[in-house]
Amino acid sequence: MNTIKKDVHQFLVERGWEDQYQAPKDLAISLTLEASELLECFQWKSDKEAVAQKRVAMSEELADVFIYATQLAIALDLDIKAIVQEKLAKNATKYPPKSVKQD
Amino acid sequence: MNTIKKDVHQFLVERGWEDQYQAPKDLAISLTLEASELLECFQWKSDKEAVAQKRVAMSEELADVFIYATQLAIALDLDIKAIVQEKLAKNATKYPPKSVKQD
Amino acid sequence: MNTIKKDVHQFLVERGWEDQYQAPKDLAISLTLEASELLECFQWKSDKEAVAQKRVAMSEELADVFIYATQLAIALDLDIKAIVQEKLAKNATKYPPKSVKQD
Amino acid sequence: MNTIKKDVHQFLVERGWEDQYQAPKDLAISLTLEASELLECFQWKSDKEAVAQKRVAMSEELADVFIYATQLAIALDLDIKAIVQEKLAKNATKYPPKSVKQD
Repeated sequence: MNTIKKDVHQFLVERGWEDQYQAPKDLAISLTLEASELLECFQWKSDKEAVAQKRVAMSEELADVFIYATQLAIALDLDIKAIVQEKLAKNATKYPPKSVKQD
Repeated sequence: MNTIKKDVHQFLVERGWEDQYQAPKDLAISLTLEASELLECFQWKSDKEAVAQKRVAMSEELADVFIYATQLAIALDLDIKAIVQEKLAKNATKYPPKSVKQD
Repeated sequence: MNTIKKDVHQFLVERGWEDQYQAPKDLAISLTLEASELLECFQWKSDKEAVAQKRVAMSEELADVFIYATQLAIALDLDIKAIVQEKLAKNATKYPPKSVKQD
Repeated sequence: MNTIKKDVHQFLVERGWEDQYQAPKDLAISLTLEASELLECFQWKSDKEAVAQKRVAMSEELADVFIYATQLAIALDLDIKAIVQEKLAKNATKYPPKSVKQD
């Protein structure tokens, strides 16, 4: 994820767009809009139809989701790998792993 | 991001939840819902107020966004670093870098 | 819809909350959040399962959607019946009615 | 709202689209997408800028929100005025009216 953070940050710096980091509310709005555009690929379609017809669009919208999520992580000074591991650990207490019963 | 993909995948496998990969439409819905929960942290607040009051909640919801986005990448067999670089390259043609004028 | 506009407006006035009309961006955010909470009723469920299990929750979230949509209409000084008729008319040019062929 | 319910229902019937009533999950997705398109009118803008620049687009997207919300009400056999009044009543217990203190 370090590479993605670097690539996204560099893209903004090259365009003088670092002020976006001061607007996390607008970044959160943008993230919501991109998630919706990804969901739109599935509108009125079954899983199979959507993946067959819209895989390229899905890949672009998913990339946009990662890009804005990464911008938010930078804006909020969060380590992506760390917050994911913490959340998975928190989820794990609510949903323990299946015990593998062996006789 | 490889680590995040591995951590997320392992979490699902440990619980026998790999069938989620067959339901990308429901994963896209989940991603939309988490993006909304992140946006909720900013509801009726300015950027400053939101970050001051809700930084922990933001970090958890942002983690959920990365988790579901990663699950979708696995479900659609997409390389996250690659699709981000492709989208940034596509954006770069629409928004070229600022030229640094030097006299 | 006049009744709904009146009921919603009165609710705000009784609480001194008319300043919300000056914040259409936050109202649009609230509307998005409520639409997500409605969609959440269908998460990981089929249509049948969702309606069987979550009809009460759906009715409350749908009410919230109408309430915030109505607040936005008041804030933007829009006649709800009129904008709906205009949009249906616009959609009708894109999707003409099925012609009933009779031999 | 009766008129809006009638107009929306007639639009669907004229096109043979009543099967949409059997797909409330997809209607809820559509409602979420339209709420996002409305929110997009405010992206990167202040309230004043957005209303000045995007009022026509806002009116069309808000109409779409009402149209899909109405379709969902029909699909779930809900009386819009009734569910709004019930929700306002429920909200009123949580947020009582401001008492007008008179000396």
